[in-house]
Amino acid sequence: MNGAEALVQSLLNAGIDTCFANPGTSEMHFVAALDRHPGMRCVLGLFEGVVTGAADGYGRMMDKPAVTLMHCGPGLTNGMANLHNARRANTPVLNLIGDQADSIVAEDPPLTADTTALAQTLSVWTRRSHDPARVAADAMEGLRASLESPGVASLILPSDAAWTEGGQLAPALPPAAPTGPTGLAVDRAAQMLTNGRKTVLLLSNRALREAPLELAGRIAHKTGARLMTLSQIPRLQAGLGRVPIERIPYNVDLSIKALAGTEQIIQIGARTPVNFFAYPGKPNTPMPQGCTCHLVTRPDQDHMAALDAIAQAVGAKTDAPRPDVPDHGPLTGRPTPELLGAAIQQTLPENAIIVDESVSYGRALLPAFWTAAPHDYLHLNGGSIGLGIPMAAGAATACPDRRVVALQADGSALYTLQGLWTQAREGLNVTTIVLSNRSYAILQGEMTAVGATMGAAAHDLFTLDRPAPDWQSLARGFGIPATRAQTIETLITQINRANATPGPSLIELLI
Amino acid sequence: MNGAEALVQSLLNAGIDTCFANPGTSEMHFVAALDRHPGMRCVLGLFEGVVTGAADGYGRMMDKPAVTLMHCGPGLTNGMANLHNARRANTPVLNLIGDQADSIVAEDPPLTADTTALAQTLSVWTRRSHDPARVAADAMEGLRASLESPGVASLILPSDAAWTEGGQLAPALPPAAPTGPTGLAVDRAAQMLTNGRKTVLLLSNRALREAPLELAGRIAHKTGARLMTLSQIPRLQAGLGRVPIERIPYNVDLSIKALAGTEQIIQIGARTPVNFFAYPGKPNTPMPQGCTCHLVTRPDQDHMAALDAIAQAVGAKTDAPRPDVPDHGPLTGRPTPELLGAAIQQTLPENAIIVDESVSYGRALLPAFWTAAPHDYLHLNGGSIGLGIPMAAGAATACPDRRVVALQADGSALYTLQGLWTQAREGLNVTTIVLSNRSYAILQGEMTAVGATMGAAAHDLFTLDRPAPDWQSLARGFGIPATRAQTIETLITQINRANATPGPSLIELLI
Repeated sequence: MNGAEALVQSLLNAGIDTCFANPGTSEMHFVAALDRHPGMRCVLGLFEGVVTGAADGYGRMMDKPAVTLMHCGPGLTNGMANLHNARRANTPVLNLIGDQADSIVAEDPPLTADTTALAQTLSVWTRRSHDPARVAADAMEGLRASLESPGVASLILPSDAAWTEGGQLAPALPPAAPTGPTGLAVDRAAQMLTNGRKTVLLLSNRALREAPLELAGRIAHKTGARLMTLSQIPRLQAGLGRVPIERIPYNVDLSIKALAGTEQIIQIGARTPVNFFAYPGKPNTPMPQGCTCHLVTRPDQDHMAALDAIAQAVGAKTDAPRPDVPDHGPLTGRPTPELLGAAIQQTLPENAIIVDESVSYGRALLPAFWTAAPHDYLHLNGGSIGLGIPMAAGAATACPDRRVVALQADGSALYTLQGLWTQAREGLNVTTIVLSNRSYAILQGEMTAVGATMGAAAHDLFTLDRPAPDWQSLARGFGIPATRAQTIETLITQINRANATPGPSLIELLI
Repeated sequence: MNGAEALVQSLLNAGIDTCFANPGTSEMHFVAALDRHPGMRCVLGLFEGVVTGAADGYGRMMDKPAVTLMHCGPGLTNGMANLHNARRANTPVLNLIGDQADSIVAEDPPLTADTTALAQTLSVWTRRSHDPARVAADAMEGLRASLESPGVASLILPSDAAWTEGGQLAPALPPAAPTGPTGLAVDRAAQMLTNGRKTVLLLSNRALREAPLELAGRIAHKTGARLMTLSQIPRLQAGLGRVPIERIPYNVDLSIKALAGTEQIIQIGARTPVNFFAYPGKPNTPMPQGCTCHLVTRPDQDHMAALDAIAQAVGAKTDAPRPDVPDHGPLTGRPTPELLGAAIQQTLPENAIIVDESVSYGRALLPAFWTAAPHDYLHLNGGSIGLGIPMAAGAATACPDRRVVALQADGSALYTLQGLWTQAREGLNVTTIVLSNRSYAILQGEMTAVGATMGAAAHDLFTLDRPAPDWQSLARGFGIPATRAQTIETLITQINRANATPGPSLIELLI
């Protein structure tokens, strides 16, 4: 048994059975081991950004990592933007980066790069595994680290460690149970919730699942605290019957307005709010001056335990009220964000997964989803665009019985459109709605936000209509049936048809 | 004048007038400065890999850098694979990476990454420029470094250094003239060339231009040395009337065979040959044991001076003979590499630029080009696939009056197909021939080379025919007219038509 075989078999034994892959020469023995130790589902990406974005979507839905398979430092760099997003979403991902053999690396063949330095910039755990006897054990350490943090772990595997005999199986290392909050932290939260000040209960990470949200809703209902989450949302269980939660807006002015008057923020799995960028003459944070922050649980801690203890301390027993289901009536006309939200609310199948990379157009959609059928909502976390199409592929791989509805800004979609091919190849149940404004609309807004003046060069750099990408051609080029909609009523018809058709479809919505 | 304005104006004053861009919020003031200080041609890429690959093509043709404009650490990572190629080709590139403002970076907004650490892995010069008064001066240092090495220089520009007043223009810093070889190095080369041993004169980098090749040809003709270059070729001036040069094959067994019996290698701008990967039981280098290497000039040195001195020392005055022009007669039938080479040889316009990312299919094509019309030949240097389409865009931007003919493997093309949109938008004169085998054919060969067995999983990971990407649809989706050819005679007709049509065209050749 060589190092690669021990690795594949140990991953399988540990329950890791999905590999998003874009292999090269250094990974040939890992690929050969897949045939000798069957059981790993391999999903091929035409580009590493597809591989890593899919691993993010998979990890968010499964709470366990998929393995990525990438080729040397440059292959890793192609996947790093979406690993950045996974890192910011605290998604468990286990990278397997094949690299130059230790026996040749000092001679610096052309594809050689500093793979370790690259991986370290975004990994919670990085190791170059030199010894075939240790490869599987190293992978198990990485797996544990990816689960405990949770986050991105990177195993760099020189090809000679993969092909050399002497591989040894290694058992999975059980991750430590998440720690609860300290009693002091709970007491302080309870005091804050009852001191009469304007308080936000700020949730993120796994505190956005149904059960902790339920508890948080009771606390908010009892104490008058506002339930909020950050602008970026790793995975939110939303929809009918679940507790709605407000989101801090992305826009700097809107975010300041949203938090105006807030005196205290209690953080459950959520970082301290910070604006996405600095803007001249504006504060770095949406929080009012003097606002007090109190971190009860870090992302890796036990949010249920925290919310349970706080609910008991404040005597929160009554469920939060649920919002009324709006009656939009028949939807017609040219699309607006409001109409799009209503269309999704009306058409979303039970237990669907919404993948949201709608960027500027979709920023205010979340409340529409509160009254859609129950679903999981996945959003771009690290802000590095080009996640949506791959993440939809990963979520659909993880949950083959659920429909994925992807709201996809066109500029962002163009970063990793190759992911459509993976959706077609695997027959994944994804309905992609490309929001086609043929521009970097976000940058037109940002230009104003930073106080700069829009001139001809700027206009030229922010528009994508010369030529306008033809999404029907692009999707068909990757084997995906595609339609175009210019009105909401057409969109609804096309969504319903797509959702009812097994496999992927794409709708270009002209907005 | 703010930092960004001083930067733009100083770049223009230094003759840097082309910017390949994919901007974000942090770059808004740079974009605004482009409007206030006109003269910079901005070429938009839909993905940073397009931006950096185009900068590589531009820099190779111009021997001066284009500026790239990228957004924060994750934007840089998207561009790093092609920067890796530029680094390995010793191409001058000046990266301008907008980043989080210094005033907010400690609060770690979601898009924040370790931009400096990332840039340092592949740059000859990296600086985060904090002071608006120094931004332009820092850029001039970076520009000089990119020219002197030559290589990739990275200026990281926090948005507040860009927008703050107090920018100061900075004059271009003249790069040092390349140093010649030492007299000892020349003497030793001359001794080696006359000691009766089997000698290879190994050229790379700017020693592959017409004039140094001419001198090298005389030396080879006089002394019986073999004229060779490395497997990866940054820019070779080839074609009728120029000196032909052999290339060390990529394949490990063929490369060993090609250098069998070689006793000495004299390196002019070329690194010591090393195989692309390690393979079990095979040597790391194609050179026979005991082969002596002698480095006369590093890539940054004066190869003309070296060759001139060596030619004088050995009394080389007679031109090398040129190869006969083959008479292929009419070409017909299903394509083969030989027929493709002959088709290019017959159809290549005068003074064209060949961009070669043909990977496995095109490895033996070079000799066919020796007798094509005179041209520049650009090849994938760092081995990170996905360079061809962007590099063609960059070369065509640099040389608008020349036709670029791009030989493009399909698997590699799928990494950065977004570059087709840039070709369409800018009306670039590029004829792309996609060599469509719907597989990672290289990996099928590599699987054998590493001694692994091809099973079902491997087969599945190396084939791209489920579904087969439809290149006509993909090209049209980006606004490029496209055709398909199944025979060499159809290909020739389509190449001739494409070459005669201003702007880009794409031909899918089923191989």
